[in-house]
Amino acid sequence: MEGYVEKLTRQARESSYKLARLTSAQKNKALRFMAAALLKNKDFILKENRKDLDLARKNNLKKSFIERLALDEGRIKQMSVSLREVAGLAEVVGKIISSSLRPNGIRIQKVRVPIGVVLVIFEARPNVVSDCAGLLFKTSNVGILRGGSASFYSNLAVQKVLNGALNAAGINFKAFFVVEKTGHKIVQELLRAQENIDLVIPRGGEALIKKVVEISHIPVIKHYKGVCHIFVDKTADIKKALKIAVNAKVQRPSVCNAVETILVHKDIAKKFLPLLKKEFDTCRVKIRADAKTAAVISGVKMARESDWSTEYLDLAVSIKTVKNADEAIKHINRYGSHHTESIITKNKKNAEHFLKEVDSACCFVNISTRFSDGYQFGLGAEIGISTDKLHARGPMGLEELTTYKWIGTGNGQIRK
Amino acid sequence: MEGYVEKLTRQARESSYKLARLTSAQKNKALRFMAAALLKNKDFILKENRKDLDLARKNNLKKSFIERLALDEGRIKQMSVSLREVAGLAEVVGKIISSSLRPNGIRIQKVRVPIGVVLVIFEARPNVVSDCAGLLFKTSNVGILRGGSASFYSNLAVQKVLNGALNAAGINFKAFFVVEKTGHKIVQELLRAQENIDLVIPRGGEALIKKVVEISHIPVIKHYKGVCHIFVDKTADIKKALKIAVNAKVQRPSVCNAVETILVHKDIAKKFLPLLKKEFDTCRVKIRADAKTAAVISGVKMARESDWSTEYLDLAVSIKTVKNADEAIKHINRYGSHHTESIITKNKKNAEHFLKEVDSACCFVNISTRFSDGYQFGLGAEIGISTDKLHARGPMGLEELTTYKWIGTGNGQIRK
Repeated sequence: MEGYVEKLTRQARESSYKLARLTSAQKNKALRFMAAALLKNKDFILKENRKDLDLARKNNLKKSFIERLALDEGRIKQMSVSLREVAGLAEVVGKIISSSLRPNGIRIQKVRVPIGVVLVIFEARPNVVSDCAGLLFKTSNVGILRGGSASFYSNLAVQKVLNGALNAAGINFKAFFVVEKTGHKIVQELLRAQENIDLVIPRGGEALIKKVVEISHIPVIKHYKGVCHIFVDKTADIKKALKIAVNAKVQRPSVCNAVETILVHKDIAKKFLPLLKKEFDTCRVKIRADAKTAAVISGVKMARESDWSTEYLDLAVSIKTVKNADEAIKHINRYGSHHTESIITKNKKNAEHFLKEVDSACCFVNISTRFSDGYQFGLGAEIGISTDKLHARGPMGLEELTTYKWIGTGNGQIRK
Repeated sequence: MEGYVEKLTRQARESSYKLARLTSAQKNKALRFMAAALLKNKDFILKENRKDLDLARKNNLKKSFIERLALDEGRIKQMSVSLREVAGLAEVVGKIISSSLRPNGIRIQKVRVPIGVVLVIFEARPNVVSDCAGLLFKTSNVGILRGGSASFYSNLAVQKVLNGALNAAGINFKAFFVVEKTGHKIVQELLRAQENIDLVIPRGGEALIKKVVEISHIPVIKHYKGVCHIFVDKTADIKKALKIAVNAKVQRPSVCNAVETILVHKDIAKKFLPLLKKEFDTCRVKIRADAKTAAVISGVKMARESDWSTEYLDLAVSIKTVKNADEAIKHINRYGSHHTESIITKNKKNAEHFLKEVDSACCFVNISTRFSDGYQFGLGAEIGISTDKLHARGPMGLEELTTYKWIGTGNGQIRK
């Protein structure tokens, strides 16, 4: 007998072939229907969300966890707006990446196509269902969405509303699936269903992602964490460096592109560090420093070896004084997470050197690390950030949810 | 104490940063030195190869296996020519893929960079060492090459010669590594060294590749097998269809882009099948047919269910009569290996339908499946073929051995 996962993934694969047939107009109409349905059915969604919230409180889950789990009218509206925006983005499927006429008369084209079936594993944020369903549908991919059990009712409610909208828009097959069974065994089976799932995107904490990578037989695109760096070179504009360091740490400390370590050139340390300390004191940012830094600014904790690879996700920062750009680059490549790093400098050669040698998805000059983001890059949407090197690196937009196929057309050519 | 794999992979990572600093001119000079050194040291390489051959004979290894293992002057010359050709190819590293100026004045660029450290696992063909070392060096990647134990002495000999040439060309660090320890434990450790290896490319039989995927914690790009199809539509030009079918099956039956299954539209079956049988009889191609096909051409074996997904790699073919293009597409997506398929038709709409709905790396119209090849596509080189959908699909050339990074430059911008 066919098991739950076997049936689900086979159906998803079948849907992927149907989905690939829809025109852009059909897809965008459906996305607008989905956006409208969320608003129209907000009372139902909120009612189901309350079931999850009641259970979470009963199970004494953390306040910050419950805060992420909770929906309200504003959040539902935001989900709706996102879907409408995705509907308005340009089509990426079918785009010709390259085309050449070979000497034997064969035309070879490289054309963007959907990846197929994408499994998204996420923790308890019900908006992920509508965000991912929208982006995957727009790119003609079938999503299998597996949320944390704490948002079980909310996820199913959002699914029900969106599927109703798809139906009303004339889509007579299931274009995405929410996993309706809980338990780790189901996840394990999904991660081994390589025949019918093409890609896994885990969204959540490092522990979740490590587990997924360990178990999965399917390619995974991910980032574990964001240990981002700013290197203040000796020729840095001090005012700009201060503004950027504060912005990168303080504007939203809980996100992956916030800075965690600031590296300061020794020749600018005496001038820069006291000013930086003053700014960070004002913003209540706690500092962990190496010995050379601590010799310049007093009253800071000494950094432990493990601090250099810690993602604080909080108002805390590591600071180290380095002797030159090379030491900064070496430190970043050793302790960083290959996410986003920025050099603050007026020296063009050092900037080029930094951009070339730093082994990270996003390498910046004279801007805040917070710009590492699909919207800021002009991608129009973002399904996640990758610190992998394969397929997608850095912010992932619609194009990153596609693959390509090679098309060859001729009139009877055979291989000599 | 640092183990063998730990030390090897750490050294490889360190080399990757040094390699990334070489200019195109330095790399191409080194590649030409490598090409010359192979010819100059051919006696040494042949001597070492004979050690492997003697052992292989002593161990009663298969004749076809020994044939692949054996080097001679011609094969060494071919290895040398390949390196010289790679030297002549255009540089892909550093190429700007896209560039845009954001409204806030930040310039965002997507730039091609090396992947880093690539592990190639292969069976007993000593030429793979020089081919892969060359392509990886050209793209500024550090190769870790792990060949089958049967070619142990040959692989080390080729490594020694190539490393000597790199040294003579002024490269004062190891730019690629041949794994000098044998045993499965070493492979297992390598496949878990995700900190210092970015990509695994297994080259060999399906069993080897399945094992690698199962064990690896590092992304793997691969193709298991090539069950390629030709669909002869009812409007096919029969002469061309015959020529293409014979070419795709007979020209080189042992390769992955040879055809394994021919699907024939029922309305052309009576006319086409007897002519095809005659051609295949002449070329000694054995046929396995479904009932409808066997009703038209007598004296053929009946196909078993498993034949539809068999890669014969031999003068054998499966033939099935289908009622239309949709049935052909469904058959291909179900039984195929997502490698290469070709439709023979004069009907433009059917061709478009086929190109869109067949879920394979290479989809062709009116040409032989044998054209699925990096050189034929104009890529200049080929490190392998991927039936995966992530990162690279179909023939993989130099670009597929690169990733990208995002570069953002500004003058003090912070996130609002």
